[in-house]
Amino acid sequence: MLDPLTSNATAPSVRLRTLHRTVLDTLAANIISGGYPIGEAIPTEAELCKSLAVGRSTLREAIRVLVDKGMLEVRTRNGTRVRPRQDWRRLDADLIRWTFGFGPDHALFADLIEARRIFEPAAAALAAERANARNLAQIEECYLAMARDLPSDLEQGVEADIGFHTAILAASGNSVLMEFETVIDTALRAAFRYSARSTHSTEKTLDCHRAVYEAIRLRQPNVAREAMLDLLSLAEHDLSVV
Amino acid sequence: MLDPLTSNATAPSVRLRTLHRTVLDTLAANIISGGYPIGEAIPTEAELCKSLAVGRSTLREAIRVLVDKGMLEVRTRNGTRVRPRQDWRRLDADLIRWTFGFGPDHALFADLIEARRIFEPAAAALAAERANARNLAQIEECYLAMARDLPSDLEQGVEADIGFHTAILAASGNSVLMEFETVIDTALRAAFRYSARSTHSTEKTLDCHRAVYEAIRLRQPNVAREAMLDLLSLAEHDLSVV
Repeated sequence: MLDPLTSNATAPSVRLRTLHRTVLDTLAANIISGGYPIGEAIPTEAELCKSLAVGRSTLREAIRVLVDKGMLEVRTRNGTRVRPRQDWRRLDADLIRWTFGFGPDHALFADLIEARRIFEPAAAALAAERANARNLAQIEECYLAMARDLPSDLEQGVEADIGFHTAILAASGNSVLMEFETVIDTALRAAFRYSARSTHSTEKTLDCHRAVYEAIRLRQPNVAREAMLDLLSLAEHDLSVV
Repeated sequence: MLDPLTSNATAPSVRLRTLHRTVLDTLAANIISGGYPIGEAIPTEAELCKSLAVGRSTLREAIRVLVDKGMLEVRTRNGTRVRPRQDWRRLDADLIRWTFGFGPDHALFADLIEARRIFEPAAAALAAERANARNLAQIEECYLAMARDLPSDLEQGVEADIGFHTAILAASGNSVLMEFETVIDTALRAAFRYSARSTHSTEKTLDCHRAVYEAIRLRQPNVAREAMLDLLSLAEHDLSVV
């Protein structure tokens, strides 16, 4: 079965070579689990090459990526150290995949839905003002895919759901809001893993999505804003019954 | 003179070795300028090692970072290609530094302030509900630093300004909102480069910041929300007179 948490087609990381990814995942798991404690040096390059059975350049590439994600810092004299958690790029697709690999993170669920309630209604209102025909076609296409796939094919349904919300961000015409796609992507893939959708809630979910789409199409910013808030309240409810 | 656009103390990239950064900056400049066109393969590893006068492992580390930023993709058979712009991580600190290296991006300025108007008033309201004594001390400390440094020391002033807004995100208690720090950081560093602050606007700026801080301290969410909107309107005005 395809796992949506690891099948993010937009994440560049899925295109990394398998060996590189294995090394990266192993180092990350050690950091997140506390096997390599915060603030302390990780094993030396020689030790890691030996224990992971890889060459120096593969190891260095993985470390470079973890440095870029804010998880490690390389100090010439003092080795490579684990940085404090607040420096980690919390919304990085890989980092989220690793974190949820250790089980559901309820505090993160709550923060994700609170953040979505802040920017998604605003994005829907902007989309109602600015959406062009191509944006509307994308939103509609995703809605129709959700209606076709839910509740029988949950994997495809979650992809269509992410596509729907992403298309609305795109329709807002704001390139910064589009970056918040990661929040939606994370929230929906994590929720998919941990919330069981009933047929009953599927119907309600589709109704809510259609209401958002219709308001955007009819150029009603305030209606779109409220419809998105309703949709997010339902999503929050579905998650709270886990 | 220290340039705030390149002195981001929280960006892990500043800790990269100089050679690595030079290679990374050179490849990125070629991608952003269109020297390496979208969708096409960049020169081969052998060609790049020769033209940049670096070893294979240094080159590979730089390419790995650009893959992680969504700018390149490595295909085993077809070489390394430049990905479409919508796949780039637009809010990546390095990517922003490179983009603004080619001059002010007015569309990005507008998108940044629009996004800030969406999430910063909400964060200020949450901060008014949830800020603890440590959060309040951080916000106050940054305000006092701004009052001390502006308008005489603009470099330090912009750091204090970023610290003020980041401390409010932290006080919101929401780990996802804290990730939006990048938006504030980008907006303020870019604005610093391209907007000239008069003594007159400094006074107004300080008044606005003090009003936000006072509302958070007095646990008045709605006042904090409105004060933040006023502050952002002023920031938008300062930018529009450039």
